[in-house]
This record gives sequence, structure tokens and C-alpha cells, in this order.
Amino acid sequence: MEKMKACVLYAPLDVRVEELPVPQLKPDQALVKVKAVGVCGSDVHYYEHGKIGRYVVEKPMILGHEAGGEVVAVGEAVTNLKVGQRVAIEPGVTCGRCKFCKEGRYNLCPDVEFLATPPYDGAFCEYLAMRADFLHPIPDHMSFEAASLVEPFSVGLHACKRAGVKPGDTVAVLGLGPVGLLTVVAARAFGATNIIAADLADIRLEMAREMGATTMVNAREQNVYDVIMQATGGVGVDVAIETAGSTATNLMAVQVARRGGKVALVGLPPNPEVPFNVFTIADGELDIFGIFRYANTYPTAVELLASGIAPVEKLVTHRFTLDQAKEALDKARTDKQGSIKVMVNL
Amino acid sequence: MEKMKACVLYAPLDVRVEELPVPQLKPDQALVKVKAVGVCGSDVHYYEHGKIGRYVVEKPMILGHEAGGEVVAVGEAVTNLKVGQRVAIEPGVTCGRCKFCKEGRYNLCPDVEFLATPPYDGAFCEYLAMRADFLHPIPDHMSFEAASLVEPFSVGLHACKRAGVKPGDTVAVLGLGPVGLLTVVAARAFGATNIIAADLADIRLEMAREMGATTMVNAREQNVYDVIMQATGGVGVDVAIETAGSTATNLMAVQVARRGGKVALVGLPPNPEVPFNVFTIADGELDIFGIFRYANTYPTAVELLASGIAPVEKLVTHRFTLDQAKEALDKARTDKQGSIKVMVNL
Amino acid sequence: MEKMKACVLYAPLDVRVEELPVPQLKPDQALVKVKAVGVCGSDVHYYEHGKIGRYVVEKPMILGHEAGGEVVAVGEAVTNLKVGQRVAIEPGVTCGRCKFCKEGRYNLCPDVEFLATPPYDGAFCEYLAMRADFLHPIPDHMSFEAASLVEPFSVGLHACKRAGVKPGDTVAVLGLGPVGLLTVVAARAFGATNIIAADLADIRLEMAREMGATTMVNAREQNVYDVIMQATGGVGVDVAIETAGSTATNLMAVQVARRGGKVALVGLPPNPEVPFNVFTIADGELDIFGIFRYANTYPTAVELLASGIAPVEKLVTHRFTLDQAKEALDKARTDKQGSIKVMVNL
Amino acid sequence: MEKMKACVLYAPLDVRVEELPVPQLKPDQALVKVKAVGVCGSDVHYYEHGKIGRYVVEKPMILGHEAGGEVVAVGEAVTNLKVGQRVAIEPGVTCGRCKFCKEGRYNLCPDVEFLATPPYDGAFCEYLAMRADFLHPIPDHMSFEAASLVEPFSVGLHACKRAGVKPGDTVAVLGLGPVGLLTVVAARAFGATNIIAADLADIRLEMAREMGATTMVNAREQNVYDVIMQATGGVGVDVAIETAGSTATNLMAVQVARRGGKVALVGLPPNPEVPFNVFTIADGELDIFGIFRYANTYPTAVELLASGIAPVEKLVTHRFTLDQAKEALDKARTDKQGSIKVMVNL
Repeated sequence: MEKMKACVLYAPLDVRVEELPVPQLKPDQALVKVKAVGVCGSDVHYYEHGKIGRYVVEKPMILGHEAGGEVVAVGEAVTNLKVGQRVAIEPGVTCGRCKFCKEGRYNLCPDVEFLATPPYDGAFCEYLAMRADFLHPIPDHMSFEAASLVEPFSVGLHACKRAGVKPGDTVAVLGLGPVGLLTVVAARAFGATNIIAADLADIRLEMAREMGATTMVNAREQNVYDVIMQATGGVGVDVAIETAGSTATNLMAVQVARRGGKVALVGLPPNPEVPFNVFTIADGELDIFGIFRYANTYPTAVELLASGIAPVEKLVTHRFTLDQAKEALDKARTDKQGSIKVMVNL
Repeated sequence: MEKMKACVLYAPLDVRVEELPVPQLKPDQALVKVKAVGVCGSDVHYYEHGKIGRYVVEKPMILGHEAGGEVVAVGEAVTNLKVGQRVAIEPGVTCGRCKFCKEGRYNLCPDVEFLATPPYDGAFCEYLAMRADFLHPIPDHMSFEAASLVEPFSVGLHACKRAGVKPGDTVAVLGLGPVGLLTVVAARAFGATNIIAADLADIRLEMAREMGATTMVNAREQNVYDVIMQATGGVGVDVAIETAGSTATNLMAVQVARRGGKVALVGLPPNPEVPFNVFTIADGELDIFGIFRYANTYPTAVELLASGIAPVEKLVTHRFTLDQAKEALDKARTDKQGSIKVMVNL
Repeated sequence: MEKMKACVLYAPLDVRVEELPVPQLKPDQALVKVKAVGVCGSDVHYYEHGKIGRYVVEKPMILGHEAGGEVVAVGEAVTNLKVGQRVAIEPGVTCGRCKFCKEGRYNLCPDVEFLATPPYDGAFCEYLAMRADFLHPIPDHMSFEAASLVEPFSVGLHACKRAGVKPGDTVAVLGLGPVGLLTVVAARAFGATNIIAADLADIRLEMAREMGATTMVNAREQNVYDVIMQATGGVGVDVAIETAGSTATNLMAVQVARRGGKVALVGLPPNPEVPFNVFTIADGELDIFGIFRYANTYPTAVELLASGIAPVEKLVTHRFTLDQAKEALDKARTDKQGSIKVMVNL
Repeated sequence: MEKMKACVLYAPLDVRVEELPVPQLKPDQALVKVKAVGVCGSDVHYYEHGKIGRYVVEKPMILGHEAGGEVVAVGEAVTNLKVGQRVAIEPGVTCGRCKFCKEGRYNLCPDVEFLATPPYDGAFCEYLAMRADFLHPIPDHMSFEAASLVEPFSVGLHACKRAGVKPGDTVAVLGLGPVGLLTVVAARAFGATNIIAADLADIRLEMAREMGATTMVNAREQNVYDVIMQATGGVGVDVAIETAGSTATNLMAVQVARRGGKVALVGLPPNPEVPFNVFTIADGELDIFGIFRYANTYPTAVELLASGIAPVEKLVTHRFTLDQAKEALDKARTDKQGSIKVMVNL
């Protein structure tokens, strides 16, 4: 049995790069040689705490779920891929048979097997066996790093789709981690012409500008509410998208939406109870949409990134090898201000 | 100048039935002889406190905005009505020219002139001059009381429309005042087959059954969450509609919605800050819709009530004359458990 | 290996009831003892012509795809069903993995295996092995005949959903075969208050009345266009649904829709080229929706029929045993005026 | 009374530039000094034939309805505009009170007063009095020619909105007159990444490239169906938009749409009866949308053009003064291959 290297989480702050068997292919799977894997906030959270909410790492688990790679073998039932195909890897394998899957909301499938979510292993490894329908071909001119960024970009696309961002809209993106920054790109793809981006760090605001934001607000220096009201003639934004995961940004998202506007809630605040103002919601007829991962975004996301909609590789501020996976995780964990996307290239 | 009787609010608890001039007709208006006006919670609130939030009664104001009547004169530009026509009166006259009006959401028109909302007079009077396009013909077999109930029914229809109630859905209606009870009727009209109605008073629960609810829960005696989960196999409801205006029912609405479910917030709790759980909203991909009045519901509502969808006149528990308007308001104010809809018939 | 009886089509007009092996169960399937199977127009068409368009019967095939029955065995991976469960059988098994399946439009799945559509066998037999997620439990008080009618009812529900039938709508149903008649029921479930039903046969018009239609038009005796315009004050209907499959009814559907109205095309005319008037479509901003089978309708349809929305068993005008399957097919083939739904009960 | 110059149509091919009174302002109107007016196909049609379908020029009428200008006076009730404001003129004044206006589809208002549609005068004149809510401010850096192009651009935006063009979509635009070319721009605004543009003239195909089309097909030289199928891997396009107004392009639009795809019909063929294939529509579950003018597009269109989404002024191939209005009309009438948008600048 062939062996491969993988980065395995044993306990908080204890990850080890070790040799594991290359996974066996099922007939409907393809084997992907992983080329690039981004470090996500959830990877860092598992690395630091060993759990996220109800998801607890109870046995050693490979981290990583934002990945791109190249097909090196295909199962006998696979017809849509061939060896050598470059792909973006959609990390949640769903059942295809439950109510949610059948209605097109497969992100809510209760039986999803999601990479690097206990008990399922992730993508910080050399080879991954995935069901072929979750491997999305990318063109030659699209990088593996861009392929791995399709995952957080999908969250932004899903949020914009659910919130109905339209051409000409004014959109506020509150929080500019990788998901927030890629939500800026998504809002542009949906035709938003005014994108107000808010964060605490100038490096992220500068990056937002490069991704297509039109107004940047440093929340340490300016009152975000005031800036948004000034920029919108006192009306508020068509769509407010919260990605920071703080109580303050959740409240702000509802406050800055215009009457009849829409709010998408992406981030999870440490204390999940947020005292939203029901009068504002009802009197303003707001629509508030909870966002959980994404569905049916990968083909669109690949299409958009391949078209060169934004220089998303600039989001990658630090690069490591698989042997340096612990350093990658530590970088992401300890330098939240100085890093944006930490990438492991294989 | 002809005179008419009207019930005017001067100060908290100070209403007087007095003689006022019959309103002058503008060319695009019709004069309606008012036949039935329901007492709404907002009438009671103005009567008791002299204001609702930012709306303050600063000069004497006629109360009442749920009305039906008969056309007795039409302005020269009116083509859609004639004398003798029986009508339901839609109480908010909108500008027709702002962004909201043009997009079909005229309930958000900032220049709306809404009956019995300061500074505009209401319908507790013998004659009302209204723009003809807000007067909706009713058939002969439909009562004026039913015509007045079109107003609260419209709130329920608008909530069900925004929340996307579909045939076969399971819907929870939390709070069974007149709006809640008519929301039960609306949910049936949208095809819901399971309607779980919750309230504190048995009289209202019994009325919910007559309006078409299939499960009744007395929240004093049973745990509403448990009953709903049991009734839905632990899944939760497709749509939860809050009409009670309490913190507890707002929180409950989010808790009892299934994954991918929808929530409509109709009532305003005294303390508008409600600590919703963002994890529940995001992880469950809930849609939460604020509801403010209604738009484009009157023709539908008349059609449905005229078709006999539910015996809505049963909601009228007490009837008074215009001379007894103060008694009507006091009944509604002091007997919230024993009364449902208090009606003034002229 | 156990044996069962099945009605097999060998050639046009040549069906034989013969002994075949009871199907083997796969782990994700349940074995259903078939209790009632309706004869569909497509069964009759295969029986008469041996093909429908591009679908050609090239080897002996069991007919029938509208079925209800009782679970008698479950595969090892089945968790949602148990022996003794009464079920409605959704006849198309889809892949769950293609773009269409993932987006919630599994009726467009190119790899669907549909009962009694070559090369897949159907339900005119004693036992059927089906993937468990396509078996929908029905309550005890719902008949197997009603379970089999869920199939054509689903077409009506799908048409009404796609065409956006809303409470208070006026809907025209052109053609009153079983699908048309069940479309009347579906329109009611979506809240339509005025349902104009047109056909050539009085027996079907009378049945439409029992299903909930409010205006019946015999197209042999009256001008359908004139009747609809008179019934709608010259405006036309909100939604027109064509189920007859004739050139005339296709043209009529577009003609009777109001400005801004919607049209659903369900039936297939013998000559598929229909000279629609583009000026009517564009000037009136019509929406025209092609309808192909259905998706995600079974749970809703079971819920609605179980709630007693309409006495659908009345549609069954003739009943046969499996041994009489040829007689059943001949009845449906030769007595299109006198029969509505011909049912085989086992 | 002040005088102004205007280009008046008296009879087919008989237009005269003459002196007319400057229009009187109503309180809710503003007086606009017209700066640029495009020649539309409908202007040419009235000029050539004196009528379009049921619209007949029965008395002398000023032509032109694609206009931009500058506010020179405002009525007493106007609050949203001031003298000196540069504006795009939305040419249809609607009632704001009918069912269509209230539901947000004011393009279907039966009482619309549309510029240069009998009996209403148009914009080939020095001054125009318009209701203020149909005058849309444009920023200083946006040209009056771009303002006039907002009108045909609106048609494209409306078609894309109704047909649901989404990010990553493949869209075919059949016909590349000004509306077709601006539909290419609109499709880009909605996020389409592949835009296949077809026409008979190379000059228009080259212009389509400049507007953002990604594949250009000369229908004289290539089989449009084959090119589209090849470009889409045999699948067809997500959305096909017909703007040419020919029988062939109408048929083509339905043929090239993918299963589950959408079709927008914008152009009117000389013979409005087009033999669409119902089998293709039903089997493929196509959605076909008739397009009539537009609603609620102007603010979006101004926003998009002001953002520099495409170099739309390049569409203006010929420019004339008001005194040369007849030459402008003749140019547009006689040089359909060599001209794209003929503009009158004042």
C-alpha cells in the first residue's frame, strides 16, 4: 500500500506530519494529488481548541478543506474526469437523497461528509479520494491557489445570491477576512457598483480596494454607521453582509440596511445571542438571511475566477510546504492582523 | 356645509363624539358612508398613551382604520366606482411616485397618509373621503364587518406571502389576537395543511380552530416548543409567524423553525431588543422577514373572504354604535382576554 | 427465486400477464407489494404504438408508473421505511449528482430511470424494488388509489408552482383528462378562487366541478375565449394551464392570459410546432413555462390528498385486476370519452 | 409665450422643424432643456409608415423618446430636482394607481403616456416638461448621449432581470441593433461570463466585442446553432435573448436554450406568428419571457453607465443637430447596415 504525507491534528496545538496510506478509490471517486490548500479559520480553531461548537475532534484528524489539485486516478464509474485534469475540490460530499439535497439546498444535508469536520479527514495531505461530482475542472490558466480560494469565495457567492445582490446595488461588507474579501469580489460579480468594506486593519482595507470595494472604512478610526449613512445619502445600503463574527458587526448589519433592504449573516459571534432590534427589522421590512456554507457555487465560482474578475491570489500573504504545516497554522493563529490567507503548497 | 358625527381623541382616555364637517371631495376621491370600523390594537394604544413610538398625537385626531362602507359620491375623475358601491377601505394612501411605490412595495412609501396615524384622521366617523384606487369593491353577499376585517387579514396575507407559505406546509402562528387569527386563515389560503396556533387564552385557541388551525397550544399549560417539535417529528415548522409582540414569542419563532425554514416577525415587543441566536439563524439558514403593514393584498383578501374561506365574522365578539365609541375602546382596552375584535357599526 | 405476475408489453396491442422473478433488493431499496396502479395516457400510447417520440420499446417492458403499495422488505441500508409501511411510489429514480439534481430540478436529470419508460420496467406487477427515498409514506386513512393518483397530481402541482398560482388567482385549465382534473385540485391548493375548466366532454366538466372548478366550459358548445373574457371582465386569467395537448388549446392558453399573466404548457400536441403570437407574448409580458414531469412534489401531494382536499378517488371510473390488465388498457384506449382514470387494483 | 424648435411628423416621410410654444409646467413637473436624443427604430417606423401596429399618428406629433438634458425650471411641488441638474429622461409617465403600477410592473400601466407614441409628443425639441419622478439625475462625468442611451439599455436590463441572468451564465444575444448591443452590456452587469452575440453585420459584431461579448457569430457566414452548441459543449445557453425581431431568431432563441434554460423575447417579427416547438419547450422545461419596455431600471442603468461598465458612446455612429432631424431620420432609415445609433445633439 502506497504511503503519503499528511498533517494530522492529535490535540490542541499538536499537529504532526506523518505517513499514512494513500486512500483507496471507490468506483465513483477520483484520486486527487493535492497542490494547494488554504488555512481556514476553522482549521485554526480546531488546531487551537480541538473543537468548534458541537463538532469535537475525538480521534486524530487531517485538517484542511480549501483545496485544489490534479486528478491522478479515476474510479471505474467516473465519466466526467480524466487523469491529468486540474480541479477545485468542493469539500462536502452530500447524500443526494434527502429533502434538502433534492430541493437544491444540499448544504443543509444532515449526512454531509465535510473535509476536516470530525470525524472526516481533510486535505492537508498528498492525496485525496473524492466523489467525482465534487471535483470541478479548472482551466489551465487558473492557478491551484485560485482553485483553493473557490471555497471561501463560494461562501461570498452564496451570501450574495441568498441576499439577492443586483446590478447597481450598494453593498456593505462588514469584516474583511478572506471570506469578507471574497464577498467583495462576489458582490462585484452580482453587479454591485458601490461596495463599502469595513474592518479594523488597514492591510485588509487596502486588499478590499484591490478586490473591488469602492469605499473603505477603518472601524478603529471612523464610525462605520456614520460613514455608510453619509455614503448613501442617509438611506442605508441595499444589502449588508456580516462576515466578522462579532456582536457589534451583527448589530451594525441590521442598522445600516435601508428600508426594504437585506442582511446576510455569515460569521458566528463567540456569544451567539445578539440583541437585534425587532422594531428596525419589522418597520423596515428587512430580510435577514442566515448563511451556512454554500450550494451549487463551484461551477460559477470557477467560471468567475477563470474570467479574471479579481486578482484573488493577492490574498495569499504567506506560503508554506506541507512539511511546514504546523508553521502555517501557527502563522494564521498568531498573526491575524498581518496575514490574510496562509497557503500550503505541495 | 354638512355635518357628521366623529369620534375624536383629544388626550389619553379622552375621546369625544362630536360634530365635524363632512369632508370635501377631491376629483380623484370618493365619499364613503362608513358602515363598520374595527377597533385595532393601535387605536387602543393611541387612546391609552397618546402615541405609538415616534408617532405622537399632537392635535385632536379621529381614530380607526379598519373600515368598510358604501360609496355615496364620487369625484369627477373617478371611473372605477359608482354611488351605491359597497367597498373595503384600504387605509394608507401612498404617493405612487417614490422608489418603493414604483417597485411594488408601497407599504414602505415614506409619504403614505395612513388613517388614524398622526397627523391623519381615521375612520370612526360617518363619512370618509378616500382616493378611489384605495376603495375595493366587495360583493353583495360580503358583510361590512368582513370588509373591515380585510385590514388585519391583509397583514396575515402579507406575512404569508413574504414568508413563502406553500401548499402542504406546516406553519406556527404564535399569538392569536385578530391579526394572529386572520394569519391562520391566510396560511390556509396559501395551502398550509398543518397550522399550529399558540396563545395564552382558550377563547382564542377555540377561535383558531374555527379559523382552520389544526393544532392548538395553550402556552400557559404546555411547552410550546415541545408541542411543536412533537408535532413535526423533531424537525420544526416550515414557517413560524410571530404576531404576539412579546420577547418570548419572537425568540420562540426562531427556535421552532426547521433548518431552511422561514420566520415572519409581525408583532412589536415592548422592548424591541430581542437576543436572537445567530448560530441558530446561520447554521439553519433561516430566512427572517420583517413585516410592516401590507401591499397589494386587498383584492386578494376580498376575493378570499368573499369565497367563504373562513367564518371571520365570528371574530367580532362585541359590537357598539358610533355614539358608544368610547365604550368600544374601553372594552378593547380593559378586556383583552375576553374580547377578540370589537366592532363599531354605523 | 420467487415468482410474481406482471403485465408485459411485447408489441403494439400485445400485452401478456406472465410470471417473472420477484426483483432482487439492493441495499438502498425497499420491496413494495403493489396495490393500485393507474393507467396513464403514456401507458396507452406505448400499448398502442410501441413508442413515444424518441422513447422506443425495444424489448418486452412492464407498463405502469402511477402506483401505490405496501413495503414488504427493506434493504440493509434503508432507515426511513419499515415493513408494513403504506407508500406512494415516485416513479423516477434520479442520479442525485448531476447539475440538475443538485440544483433541485431533478426532473431534468439526464440519467433518470423512470418506470415504464424504455428500457425500464414499470409497475403493472406484484412487486417492485425501488430506491427507498422515492417511496413516500401515506397515512392509514389514505387509499392506495389516492396514492397512485399522487403521480398525475404531481404534474398539476408542479405546473401551478412553476406558474406561480397565488391565493385569489383566476386560473384556466384547458383540457380535463386526469392531469387536467388534478390540476384543478392543485390550483385550489395554491389558493386560486376562480378556476375555469374547459373540455369537450360533459362527464369531465362535471368531474371538474367536483374537484373544485368554479366555471365549466364545454368547448363544443361555447367559445372558450369568449367565456373566459366574460368571466374576467375582459381582462383574461392570471394563469392559463394547457393539459389537453392540442394545437388549439396551446394557442388558447396564450390568448386567454391577462397582461402580465402566466402560461404553463403541460400537454404535447401531435404536431409540436404551434404558431404562438409573439406580439401577444411580448406586449403582454407573458411568462410561458414548459412543464416536464415534476420534482419535490410527492410529500406535498400526499399531505394535501391526506388532508381531504378533494374527493380524488371519484376520478377512478373503471377498475380491473392485474389479470385483466389488457382489458384495462383497452378500456382506456377505446373509451376516452367515457372513462377518466382506469385503475388496476391488486 | 416662449417658443422653441421641434421636429414634427406630419405624414410618412414628412417631418418639419418648426416653432412651437415651450410647454407649460405643471406643479409636479420639471422643464428640461433637451441635450441629446437618440433615433430609435420606432421613430424610424413612425417616420416611414405613420403607425406601429395599433398606434397610429393621427395628428402632427413630435418624435423621439431617448433623451437626456438639463433641468431649467421646476414646478412648485418638485423637491427632488433643482435647476441645473443633469438628467436622463424616462419617457413613459404612468398613473401610479392601477394594479400594474402598484405591483411594480408599471410598464404594463394601461394609462401610460409615452413620449412619441400617439397621441403624446416626444423629445425631438428644445424643451420638455416631464413629471419629476421620471427624471433621473446623472453625475457630471456622464454624457448626455449616455443619458439618452439609458433608454435602450433599460430594455436590455429588463430582459436580463426577467430572464434571471446570473454570475457565470452563458448568454446568447440574437440581433445586435442598439438594444441588442446594450443587452450585451446588461448581461455583463448581471455577471454573465460568456456572451455569444450574433448578427449579420460585421460592424455590429465588432461593436459587440467592445461592449463585452466573448463570442461573435456572423449569421451570414456561420450556422449560429452549431457555433452555440460547440461553444457550450452541446448543452446550449443558460439564457437566450432575442432582439432582432425576425422569425428565424425567435425560433433560434428557443432552440439554443439549454434544458431548464430561459428565453427572453424582445423584438417583434413582422409576422408575429412564430411556430415554436412545444416539445422543446415542455421537455426542456424552458421559461419564455415576453419583454415590453422596462420598469425600475433607470436608477440602476444610470449607476452602471456612470461606473464606466462599457464605452457605450461608441454606439453613436452618426450625429446631427435638431435642424438636421430629417437627415438623422433618413440616415437611420436608409443605412441600417452602416449606422448603429444615430444621435441628435442640441
